Amino acid sequence: MDGVLANVYEQFILFEQQHTGRTKRMEELSGLLEREAFPNHDLYVHSDNFFLDAKPMAGSPEVLSRLNDQYDLYIVSSAMEFPPSLLQKKRWLEIHFPFIHWKQIILCGSKDFLVGDILIDDHFKNLDPFQGTTLLFTQPHNIGREVGRHLRVDDWQAIGELLWKV
Amino acid sequence: MDGVLANVYEQFILFEQQHTGRTKRMEELSGLLEREAFPNHDLYVHSDNFFLDAKPMAGSPEVLSRLNDQYDLYIVSSAMEFPPSLLQKKRWLEIHFPFIHWKQIILCGSKDFLVGDILIDDHFKNLDPFQGTTLLFTQPHNIGREVGRHLRVDDWQAIGELLWKV
Repeated sequence: MDGVLANVYEQFILFEQQHTGRTKRMEELSGLLEREAFPNHDLYVHSDNFFLDAKPMAGSPEVLSRLNDQYDLYIVSSAMEFPPSLLQKKRWLEIHFPFIHWKQIILCGSKDFLVGDILIDDHFKNLDPFQGTTLLFTQPHNIGREVGRHLRVDDWQAIGELLWKV
Repeated sequence: MDGVLANVYEQFILFEQQHTGRTKRMEELSGLLEREAFPNHDLYVHSDNFFLDAKPMAGSPEVLSRLNDQYDLYIVSSAMEFPPSLLQKKRWLEIHFPFIHWKQIILCGSKDFLVGDILIDDHFKNLDPFQGTTLLFTQPHNIGREVGRHLRVDDWQAIGELLWKV
């Protein structure tokens, strides 16, 4: 979800503005993990609206809706480290992706247990242990890194073009 | 969790007493799903303390702690149908099973995605699609049913005797 379906960087920048008065520019964030780029990271993600108020990535509802008709699809999100995010993430999916059934949602800690054909994620730590096809969704923290066996996708339009079945 | 780690039947009986004044006897519950045995099922599981106040099954913390030292263990719980249960279940594990790391917790809808060596569950719908070894934990709703390829276990002592490595 975070950094693939949900635009969490926009949220980090907004929370940073509200808490410190400073506006981080996207160029400052390249190659840094969220925790490194935003020292108040933990404060923000433990709030009661950080995840709930995030905006969906451009095009994600439209593309995912069509993928959902063609694939056996699951939404898998690391949420267990931040318990207040659990209910927010469930509600957020109901609001922005109402076509996703509750049976398709998995909130977890580590993603090491995942087995499947395709994984779309923005973190190497999640993609690297996955046996199937792996799509790296471009986010500031992974910019400039060698993708190895993963396939880099910059936006949801690229995902659609790659995965939609005719 | 429910019906394996957490004694939810005790909770159903208690909530039924509080809401209707009637005490269900365990014999009345045999072979019935929770929803069939307790018509107010949905009211109870949507409350803010049904899962949080459940008692752990006898022996489960001790046996699971030892299994956790010997296996790559995950706690997987169907929670997505009842969003108020999400945070309760996370807290409940922190209280009763503090040796379980947040990375080991999976809260899901359907359990069809699970791949692994051993699954312990009280529902056939979860055990039937699982490819590995399957242990059916005895609960009122599955009493009297043929277990097929699954192995029936009546309590956590039986699980320990079966799975502990010397």
